Amino acid sequence: MENISLNRINKLREACADAEIDAFFVRETSNVQWLSAFDGVFDEEGAHAMLVMPDGAMLHTDSRYSEACKKAAGIHGGVVEVSDERVSHAKFAAVALGGACELAGGKSCSLGVEDSIALSGFRSLERAFSESLPDVQLRETSNFIVGLRGVKDADEIARMKAAQAITDAAFSHIITFMKPGMTEREVQIELEDFMVRHGAEGLAFPSIVACGANGASPHSVPGATKLEAGQCVVMDFGARAQGYCSDMTRTVFLGEPSERLRAGYAAIRDANEQVEAVLRPGMTGKEAHELAEHVLAEHGFAGKMGHSLGHGVGIDIHEEPLLSPRNGAPLAPGNVVTVEPGVYLAGDFGMRLEDFGVITENGYEVFTQSTHEMIVL
Amino acid sequence: MENISLNRINKLREACADAEIDAFFVRETSNVQWLSAFDGVFDEEGAHAMLVMPDGAMLHTDSRYSEACKKAAGIHGGVVEVSDERVSHAKFAAVALGGACELAGGKSCSLGVEDSIALSGFRSLERAFSESLPDVQLRETSNFIVGLRGVKDADEIARMKAAQAITDAAFSHIITFMKPGMTEREVQIELEDFMVRHGAEGLAFPSIVACGANGASPHSVPGATKLEAGQCVVMDFGARAQGYCSDMTRTVFLGEPSERLRAGYAAIRDANEQVEAVLRPGMTGKEAHELAEHVLAEHGFAGKMGHSLGHGVGIDIHEEPLLSPRNGAPLAPGNVVTVEPGVYLAGDFGMRLEDFGVITENGYEVFTQSTHEMIVL
Repeated sequence: MENISLNRINKLREACADAEIDAFFVRETSNVQWLSAFDGVFDEEGAHAMLVMPDGAMLHTDSRYSEACKKAAGIHGGVVEVSDERVSHAKFAAVALGGACELAGGKSCSLGVEDSIALSGFRSLERAFSESLPDVQLRETSNFIVGLRGVKDADEIARMKAAQAITDAAFSHIITFMKPGMTEREVQIELEDFMVRHGAEGLAFPSIVACGANGASPHSVPGATKLEAGQCVVMDFGARAQGYCSDMTRTVFLGEPSERLRAGYAAIRDANEQVEAVLRPGMTGKEAHELAEHVLAEHGFAGKMGHSLGHGVGIDIHEEPLLSPRNGAPLAPGNVVTVEPGVYLAGDFGMRLEDFGVITENGYEVFTQSTHEMIVL
Repeated sequence: MENISLNRINKLREACADAEIDAFFVRETSNVQWLSAFDGVFDEEGAHAMLVMPDGAMLHTDSRYSEACKKAAGIHGGVVEVSDERVSHAKFAAVALGGACELAGGKSCSLGVEDSIALSGFRSLERAFSESLPDVQLRETSNFIVGLRGVKDADEIARMKAAQAITDAAFSHIITFMKPGMTEREVQIELEDFMVRHGAEGLAFPSIVACGANGASPHSVPGATKLEAGQCVVMDFGARAQGYCSDMTRTVFLGEPSERLRAGYAAIRDANEQVEAVLRPGMTGKEAHELAEHVLAEHGFAGKMGHSLGHGVGIDIHEEPLLSPRNGAPLAPGNVVTVEPGVYLAGDFGMRLEDFGVITENGYEVFTQSTHEMIVL
């Protein structure tokens, strides 16, 4: 049987070999979660560190988590050794790497560290190594592991489909629940409550429910504004399940929409569907973004999107790769990305249509099952 | 009228003067929120930075937040100048500080930075300053602003009392809802749903609902375990309201408790009440912790707590000061702390009784209104 944890750790080892890095110190919980493949163990406290060496991988945690970590390590064949020794992460790494350097004949070695680490944690590493292993060179990297996480394996794809199924069910429910006169916040609470009562372990991010002109702010916070007939309502939300996020946006209409609202919806739907039809390996994030901008412009909404077309999704809600003008790199099979064209007219309305899915060998498989048809409530 | 934002910014300025720091670069959203006193603006994205100088304070944000920030700045008398210029936080700080240094006669100056900043952000500052202001010295601090936040003002205390009122109401509700046969997760979902439907803007932290032996892990994650008659259930939870956290724990009993459970509850109640009776300015966190340990030991539960007696609460759920063996500093009026003695017997049961309140001029005012009497359901 495939060992998920070992596969991921080996991916990191290969990338390290290419970059001439001998070992890697991992401090971000989402990276630790991905590498270890431990389920139901990690929370937001950031209490863990991992050290990945050519012939060993160690997780350093504390007594609150060690029992759960050891159990999870066993499930994955003991690829990761768990320690709850009462020393700092930095000292733990120095001792563990010291042993490995000795085995390697005492030659100097380099230790990779992502630059998302807190400065205090980095200083602590510098002190620990300068005392005991002055020949170890700290190599600062940006998005090194996050980059590897951009290509998802089958296990991750299955988890995100399961998370999206809960999110789709919540959408089916909320369109029978929401009515003019309710506040955005009431709709948000019902939407989120539905997801946690139907299998979500939490939310991928705080949901957006924005009606009328509020929809023109892509990051609107749901509030006391009441839903009114004649308006459109943007809902952007996602369940988290088995450690993975989902993400969808739908815009629905309260009563018969005006011509202007219909034109906006036709634009975002066409942009969404044209991009989804051509997304495939080799296309760049920039090309996908520009196609969407082009379609929106053809519909008379040039320059009205104001954000990137999409982003990667996984353990974190925003991951690599981006479908944005700044990403000239080709997409690869296993990339999981959102496609979320929108148009925003300040003081008037905003709308967005977002699916999420995976780049396959020759296309794009959408996880989102909810309709693109205009929904008039 | 008192200007909350100016008061807090001036506190930072005084602390900077004492430490011979000329200006401070603030990157942590909770610190930005405290200094600016802006409401309903900030989320978890960490999209903001603040620069506090002797005669000016600037908030650097992006277009998604600038409208809300400018409105909030107006409410506080324009003490904070808002910019959404499309440059990095580091470049923004270099330009703004450059102007201030010139005004100061071109002499070299020092810029404080908390070491909780990401290494990437710190490197970005180093680059921006070495290019344009090589005479600026970056001064790394630990818990500099977090330390100032340890003394709460009247506005903060009022917000935490309001948050705790929601939390107390949720407790009153949940003890009428929970029954043997329900899972921990079902109780958690109901508890959290009640808080958000009764005024909470969110949760202070993911709630703990742990029955029987699960309660012996202080950080138990609520799961499929069913509540059983004869057990005790630990519930640790808190609403977030107006940007501030609340925090309480109660342990309730499903059916008549055994003598052993009664003895445990008598111990934690006595420890809680003895500490709360003597907490006052001048007492150290260490003394408070040791008194609780002493009372637990008298009841036959020596060494069964395993965690610190309490912690500060505010914008973050864990703040300064700690009631722990490592804190020899005297408490001060305005410190808001939890008092949460617990006993944990692995494989058997765990229980905890937690209140939260403020150190006053001559004592401790408890915010928590829920009873300490034993609750048997």
